[in-house]
Amino acid sequence: MSTDDLLKPHRDAIDSIDQTILSLLNERAAHARAIGELKGSGVVYRPEREAQVLRRIQELNGGLGGLLSNEAVARLFREIMSECLAVERPLTITYLGPEGTFTQQAANKHFGHAAHTQPCATIDEAFRLVEARQADYVVAPVENSTEGAVGRTLDLLVASPLKACGEVVLRIHHHLLRKVANQEGITKVYAHAQALSQCHEWLNKNLPSHVARVAVASNARAAQLAAEDETAVAIASQAAAERFELCKLASNIEDEPNNTTRFLVLGHQTTGASGIDKTSLIVSAPNKVGTVHELLHALSENGVSMSKLESRPSKVGLWEYVFFIDVEGHVEDEHVKNALADLQERAAFLKIVGAYPKAVL
Amino acid sequence: MSTDDLLKPHRDAIDSIDQTILSLLNERAAHARAIGELKGSGVVYRPEREAQVLRRIQELNGGLGGLLSNEAVARLFREIMSECLAVERPLTITYLGPEGTFTQQAANKHFGHAAHTQPCATIDEAFRLVEARQADYVVAPVENSTEGAVGRTLDLLVASPLKACGEVVLRIHHHLLRKVANQEGITKVYAHAQALSQCHEWLNKNLPSHVARVAVASNARAAQLAAEDETAVAIASQAAAERFELCKLASNIEDEPNNTTRFLVLGHQTTGASGIDKTSLIVSAPNKVGTVHELLHALSENGVSMSKLESRPSKVGLWEYVFFIDVEGHVEDEHVKNALADLQERAAFLKIVGAYPKAVL
Repeated sequence: MSTDDLLKPHRDAIDSIDQTILSLLNERAAHARAIGELKGSGVVYRPEREAQVLRRIQELNGGLGGLLSNEAVARLFREIMSECLAVERPLTITYLGPEGTFTQQAANKHFGHAAHTQPCATIDEAFRLVEARQADYVVAPVENSTEGAVGRTLDLLVASPLKACGEVVLRIHHHLLRKVANQEGITKVYAHAQALSQCHEWLNKNLPSHVARVAVASNARAAQLAAEDETAVAIASQAAAERFELCKLASNIEDEPNNTTRFLVLGHQTTGASGIDKTSLIVSAPNKVGTVHELLHALSENGVSMSKLESRPSKVGLWEYVFFIDVEGHVEDEHVKNALADLQERAAFLKIVGAYPKAVL
Repeated sequence: MSTDDLLKPHRDAIDSIDQTILSLLNERAAHARAIGELKGSGVVYRPEREAQVLRRIQELNGGLGGLLSNEAVARLFREIMSECLAVERPLTITYLGPEGTFTQQAANKHFGHAAHTQPCATIDEAFRLVEARQADYVVAPVENSTEGAVGRTLDLLVASPLKACGEVVLRIHHHLLRKVANQEGITKVYAHAQALSQCHEWLNKNLPSHVARVAVASNARAAQLAAEDETAVAIASQAAAERFELCKLASNIEDEPNNTTRFLVLGHQTTGASGIDKTSLIVSAPNKVGTVHELLHALSENGVSMSKLESRPSKVGLWEYVFFIDVEGHVEDEHVKNALADLQERAAFLKIVGAYPKAVL
């Protein structure tokens, strides 16, 4: 039997599978349209529903034991939902440019490629376009980003009328990049301060101690500087290596192998409970001993777990600090509702940034 | 009945559709792996087969009359094939950077997003990486590009050992971009010479005659210049508008509404016939009266139609001109084979750049 004869049954099977998938995709789009018409609110994107669909797909996929990874099927179903949604109207998603950053990756991971991603010069501008309804959603880094925007994002969250409706978690790898493909004569290493600290041990072990560590605005900027100076290296992403045509001297040099960056998706809508949710809060209180403890007590006595607590000097108002708190659960969950009522009584300022489905990895 | 009650049957239907699609995707990946193992050559990507799959999908989709456009289903099946292929090994595709250009769009359109696209500083470098087998395929513009690389691509085709294995056709829209959102005080318009000529009539009608037309290396470069000079406008793409944060003064200003750019995909493999194919040739001949006519006669007398003829001054060898010729059909088709044999006798130099499936739009 020739190879062609052996291949034929597989190709025929694929053709028949494809035909079935095609019909199902069109049926799916018709149901998606019917749902849009029934809701009639103009809001086509439902984060809680998308999260449920993806979780279920990954759970089923695990059970199947097939060749496609959970990440691959999540990517494909994102694209399928993205195309079904774009039948009505493609979404526009703003983010802090330039293109090729982790934030753009996060936007595409969350909304698929049928959505339109629009880079902005500043994170403020990315928020403003959505606030002015010239774009649908903004994706902004809130934790552990090496693109220099986390602090500004948090400040904007305090004042912006936008509501969080989703989160995206990206696994971040750092690489040591240089214009030339050898380690000789390196005098300095450029990176965002976050990245320098995330690769601290690796740098201690692998670079001579006279190499200066220079913190810059972002890892993309570090790569750009390394592209202009052969005696420098940069810590940056794969995308930056490509963008600035640098050689990779070492890969995955982060000390912590599960290094991730977390992003919030913000828009105008409030999001219903998906079953596995988080709520982001901003709280401020008078600066006196025991304040934080008292605030947190409002959570714990109602059985609400906290997944993040971060304090920042307040830029507005009468309080010295604002606290960014993420809790497990949805504002509509009874115990979360009670905790927030208690918190409201004790805090000088409480803002619910939003409740949203926990990121599907 | 509440909206939720009305939504439920549609959501249940979508859940059941998704479950079926998921199983089918995993079955599909298993067949794709089986095919890869049977072929055992290490070459996982089969352009002729992908083209056949997409053509069939679009034909079936037209018959279904569903909501998803032929473009949407082609995008989804590209992604599905891309993920099935990446189960074995993701492909690396080089192109002339920077990111966000039409060429990157072409690479993603052709290979899907599971493939890895790698921007290069020059088109020479993009070819070189594939020649050195550090990347799998290069995507390069060959016709009507406004990114400044067509001439160089053609020169490289003469000398490169790479073979064409696919073509991509992108519909190109030009926009008039400016740093500020008004038409006052414009002194010049920057663009690639191709774009200036493609928007010639629109510019005549809509810009004052004293506005200078300045040809630059690429439309991306034009946008960059306009970003630095408020008295200038640029003709460039949506991607460039976003990249350099320019306002769109006018959309789709190209005189010819079906303005397209054509790209070749090149790698190491020869591609079998898909049923609707093209063959790209490079021919040179002594510069004497009637030479071209004689060459073309070899095609027509064998019933082979030509879809492109372009001459360029030769940079190497003894001939003054080289001719880039595309014909309908595959080198393995009998009439094409005969025509090439005749051509070989009459031409001083004949190179078959490759035979490949006609682009699926």
